[in-house]
Amino acid sequence: MTMTSDRPVSLPDDHPRASGAKPTPRVDVAGMSEHLLGRWPEWRRAARERATDPTFWKDESQSMAEHRERVLEQMKLLASEETHQVWLGFPERLGGKDSSGANLAGFEELVAADPSLQIKAGVQWGLFASAILHLGTPEQQDRLLPAAMDLSVPGAFAMTEIGHGSDVASVATTATYDPATQEFVVHTPFRAAWKEFLGNAAVHATAATVFAQLITNGVNHGVHCFYVPVRDPETMEFLPGISGYDDGLKGGLRGVDNGRLAFDQVRVPRADLLARYGAVAADGTYSSIIDSPGRRFFTMLGSLVQGRVSLDGAAVTASKLGLAIAVKYGAERRQFTSSSPVEETVLLDYATHRRRLLPRVAETYASHFAHDRLLDLFDDVFSGEKDTPEQREDLETMAAALKSTSTTFVLETLQECRVACGGAGFMTENRITSLHHDLDVYATFEGDNTVLQQLVAKRLVGDYAKHLKGSTKTPAGLARFVVDQAADAALHRTGLRRFGQAIADVGDPRRAAGHLRDTDTQRELLADRVATMVEDVAMAMRPAQKADPVTAARIFDENQVQLVEAAKAHADLLRWSAFTEALADIEDPGTRRVLTWLRDVFGLTLIERNLAWYLVNGRLSAQRARTVTSYVDRLLDRLRPHAVDLVDAWGYGPEHLRAPIASGLEAERQEEARAYYAAQRASGEAPVSEKSLKKKQR
Amino acid sequence: MTMTSDRPVSLPDDHPRASGAKPTPRVDVAGMSEHLLGRWPEWRRAARERATDPTFWKDESQSMAEHRERVLEQMKLLASEETHQVWLGFPERLGGKDSSGANLAGFEELVAADPSLQIKAGVQWGLFASAILHLGTPEQQDRLLPAAMDLSVPGAFAMTEIGHGSDVASVATTATYDPATQEFVVHTPFRAAWKEFLGNAAVHATAATVFAQLITNGVNHGVHCFYVPVRDPETMEFLPGISGYDDGLKGGLRGVDNGRLAFDQVRVPRADLLARYGAVAADGTYSSIIDSPGRRFFTMLGSLVQGRVSLDGAAVTASKLGLAIAVKYGAERRQFTSSSPVEETVLLDYATHRRRLLPRVAETYASHFAHDRLLDLFDDVFSGEKDTPEQREDLETMAAALKSTSTTFVLETLQECRVACGGAGFMTENRITSLHHDLDVYATFEGDNTVLQQLVAKRLVGDYAKHLKGSTKTPAGLARFVVDQAADAALHRTGLRRFGQAIADVGDPRRAAGHLRDTDTQRELLADRVATMVEDVAMAMRPAQKADPVTAARIFDENQVQLVEAAKAHADLLRWSAFTEALADIEDPGTRRVLTWLRDVFGLTLIERNLAWYLVNGRLSAQRARTVTSYVDRLLDRLRPHAVDLVDAWGYGPEHLRAPIASGLEAERQEEARAYYAAQRASGEAPVSEKSLKKKQR
Repeated sequence: MTMTSDRPVSLPDDHPRASGAKPTPRVDVAGMSEHLLGRWPEWRRAARERATDPTFWKDESQSMAEHRERVLEQMKLLASEETHQVWLGFPERLGGKDSSGANLAGFEELVAADPSLQIKAGVQWGLFASAILHLGTPEQQDRLLPAAMDLSVPGAFAMTEIGHGSDVASVATTATYDPATQEFVVHTPFRAAWKEFLGNAAVHATAATVFAQLITNGVNHGVHCFYVPVRDPETMEFLPGISGYDDGLKGGLRGVDNGRLAFDQVRVPRADLLARYGAVAADGTYSSIIDSPGRRFFTMLGSLVQGRVSLDGAAVTASKLGLAIAVKYGAERRQFTSSSPVEETVLLDYATHRRRLLPRVAETYASHFAHDRLLDLFDDVFSGEKDTPEQREDLETMAAALKSTSTTFVLETLQECRVACGGAGFMTENRITSLHHDLDVYATFEGDNTVLQQLVAKRLVGDYAKHLKGSTKTPAGLARFVVDQAADAALHRTGLRRFGQAIADVGDPRRAAGHLRDTDTQRELLADRVATMVEDVAMAMRPAQKADPVTAARIFDENQVQLVEAAKAHADLLRWSAFTEALADIEDPGTRRVLTWLRDVFGLTLIERNLAWYLVNGRLSAQRARTVTSYVDRLLDRLRPHAVDLVDAWGYGPEHLRAPIASGLEAERQEEARAYYAAQRASGEAPVSEKSLKKKQR
Repeated sequence: MTMTSDRPVSLPDDHPRASGAKPTPRVDVAGMSEHLLGRWPEWRRAARERATDPTFWKDESQSMAEHRERVLEQMKLLASEETHQVWLGFPERLGGKDSSGANLAGFEELVAADPSLQIKAGVQWGLFASAILHLGTPEQQDRLLPAAMDLSVPGAFAMTEIGHGSDVASVATTATYDPATQEFVVHTPFRAAWKEFLGNAAVHATAATVFAQLITNGVNHGVHCFYVPVRDPETMEFLPGISGYDDGLKGGLRGVDNGRLAFDQVRVPRADLLARYGAVAADGTYSSIIDSPGRRFFTMLGSLVQGRVSLDGAAVTASKLGLAIAVKYGAERRQFTSSSPVEETVLLDYATHRRRLLPRVAETYASHFAHDRLLDLFDDVFSGEKDTPEQREDLETMAAALKSTSTTFVLETLQECRVACGGAGFMTENRITSLHHDLDVYATFEGDNTVLQQLVAKRLVGDYAKHLKGSTKTPAGLARFVVDQAADAALHRTGLRRFGQAIADVGDPRRAAGHLRDTDTQRELLADRVATMVEDVAMAMRPAQKADPVTAARIFDENQVQLVEAAKAHADLLRWSAFTEALADIEDPGTRRVLTWLRDVFGLTLIERNLAWYLVNGRLSAQRARTVTSYVDRLLDRLRPHAVDLVDAWGYGPEHLRAPIASGLEAERQEEARAYYAAQRASGEAPVSEKSLKKKQR
């Protein structure tokens, strides 16, 4: 790893800009790095180790066709590994380890090798095989999973249709049961019902898990999943009735062969309806363990939440990679002369540069800790340890909240990293644009972020309504926990208002800043905002319950932007809470101190971002609000010497970053230039500048 | 062009959601489209016509090497055109038309064909040839320009070095005069001095305009430009002493062959120092028409402002293309059922979707009108009509302010368009990701946006200081004009404060909203913010003037973020003013009315974006601030039926957009699905849903 001159090397080491003589704490990089590996350190470490093997690296020079084949070969290596990382989530009786959490912990790290590999592997094991696992019966698992697991059957996950992206309940593909032959007839009735954007579909898939409306005896029982062979594995020709289309070039992820599939009266044996949540008897009688069609649908979809969980983790990983590159470069690169007439200023010593990058480092830490909690909850549910309907609902809400936040954040972050590195950031070899292109689609697949945010907001509003009724007491998952906290804060709102008023009367901004650094103050401000927004929206939408559909739609429309804002505020609170809780687990005092500053930066930039809300709603006085920005700036200045340590602690070395600008090359070049000028001055041959001559003449 | 059902087809046509029975105005699309062609309609029209020719389109399937050659071939076509669009800015005596404005008006439109073509052409005619034009003597122009103009000498513009991007004054390449041979020795002393990111350098350039420190008789006279052959035009091998490096793959613009150049004691005849602003006699005596080395340097750089002007125009064009695609798709695409149980809701009928796209349409109009003003000023200066030092300074400030704003805006806009189009937005065939990748680097080349914003802010602070001294009265260019306006507003600040207070006492938010719609209110709020921020920063930085360098640097650092914010606020005011002035020129009353709403959206979203500032600084009461967002939402609702008209008025047809999702295909597919369901219902064979059966059973 790069050693930079600005890293504090011993304790105590005064921060050059600190006014007092307080010793600057130091981040224990190795310890923190270990700590951040989380609950399944061995699997995450192994996966990260694998990502240093050039065999798994993205080769930017390849054509789309070559890239697709390379990724398939990489997947074969994953499938043949002795350790079988990609099988971890599958049942022990089939060679897996029934360890959903460990599986994702390792899987997310694939993004450091090549996001195309992460996504194409995700299609195979996280979607196609997982559909068999979660929607199939034990018999179907035994029969169909092994070939999906060992990649002898590459598969597509045929859910999305051209006409219906995030609205899965409305897919138009039909599977009509024919009792005469005991088969389902899978059919695409029109072009909008083509299955679209399916990974593996363009080239490699020989089978697909196809979502279609199950119709039997004239009744549509809603969306179910069918196992459908699509290509002859020998010739790789489409089977009769199947047709396809190669989506071709995309904005990124060119190693994934996305495509369309359509079905023309394709016959599927009755046994290949994945029948865990709905089965059809030989005579066409439908049965299900879940009576309500609505709940059945959401249970089936909910079992596939893994995709969203892993995208959240992958987005956090990509944010780390981008920021590590930009921060390391920013800690070496010099431009323009500022304080010294000889030496140019290091980029991170510019306030604007710190502002661009360091709050994003803080937000990435928050996202990391929140993702860890999400993984916990995911593992609790899918290990069966704490698998209740409420836990599942919490998991889905939290996954939606975090996935929609982190996959938007990563794009803004990579863009900021790109421009923060200037022209060098635009060079493919420096990774940032490549990661940006690949991660772009994460914001809309596995649930469009705006749709997910509405889902979260609806849950929050629903909880609020229950809370009002006082009739429901649900167990506390993490998501619920913080919502409760938010609700609690709402109850004490009057108190908080008085508190705000008290601050308004305090004349000294320094003191107000002291308050803002206070954990409880930050929590109250953030939680109160969620609670108030949810309450406001819930109240505003109340009339919709008894209105005609058109009026109800208008009321919904009028509150939609606020709904989404409430969901964002909720995700912010989730992440802030996770960061705050994580601080307690950090044992090294220096590390904890620096991380606490970083948490303060996160909390305060959230407040700064929504400052108008706090002012308009009387939660902060103008005078106090004025101190937020300057306090953030002071914290960023204080964090400056720790910037490189903070990104190093994420544990990505040169083989993960693979960016020449983050390799120390820049500092080497500067050293060479410095030596040249020193030699020139020593030789007495340095030219005089016209400017200085003119000054002397005056 | 697509006809959409939601476009008002006749007058008067009530907007379905308008509460009253007021007739909805209609945008005169054809008239507006003509109007927006601006001052050189024939050249812009011709360029736009050319962009419909597939010969000039970007071919996404090509490899980098193929793409580079294709773009060179396209440039040859441009050079051989009878009309010689690309020669417009050059002297009449050499075949040009001395019409700088017309040149850029056409040049910007190349982005609709392929941004790589725009940039590679920009390197050739806008940088390489322009350096000869603006920095060369008439003799040098006559001798060197023809081959640059007709592309028989493809050239690189060798200014940027690895070690010095935006800081041109510090380039390390030297050109030392040798009186013995009457030659300059051009030399790269170390790796950081390699000329980097140069378009044409990797493959096609046979010459370069090289910026180096001119040293003669032991004195460094600062950066000057030299004409240096770099490759043998027959063999395309580097000439002796020249070496290079291919930058290879970039995040976009893969049709531009960027690369590095280095010089090892390369000898250049004395006659090839471009000598307009600095010449060396045979004996090595240096002379210049500008005595101050600082002013000389800035004059030389300033003559190359054209690049920034044209990037502003290109960014506005790309924003239009992206938004036109996303708005047209959003006006057709349906997802989820909301108001109607049968028909799904059109995306643009969702408040969140309007919020994502329509304020960006408004901002793009503002940027368009501001760019028109910039082109005017550019033409005034470069035609010599109004070429004063003050006008040049105004032009440079305005170009920096607008280029830094529009090239950041376009990236955010294309990202938003991408996600607003879901998975379809990620497909390369739908153009948006491709435009995003290509435009990415616009944010940092021709001046890093953050550096440019600081340049603008310094100018504003400088003007403020002059204003305080009261000694300088400069003529009014547009840039100066609005700055003066801002300053005027500052003088009346007390009045404005009283006004704010008055509003605070008004109980009816409806009335407050009425005020916000008022042009004068918007102007005062926006101008006051610029003036106040400039004043605050100027005051805060005052102590730096008499401080030691380290303290001065600290003071600067502490105010840097605010400086950049002030520059952004200035650019916002510039664009708002241009939009407002443009309204007066729109003759059709319906069009003017809709455009006024759009201007209000722009003005109010600017205020909304900085609402905390207005609140903290007592410019808006909390009550009034609360109305801003809801008023914007109402305006967006009112603009909804005009959305497609507003993007159509930009004048880009299907051959410019070239995106299947913006072609009407989506509506066609929906029609097909609708027909299928209608037929099914008519046949009585439609399956009953389990859900509705269960309802009946209850």
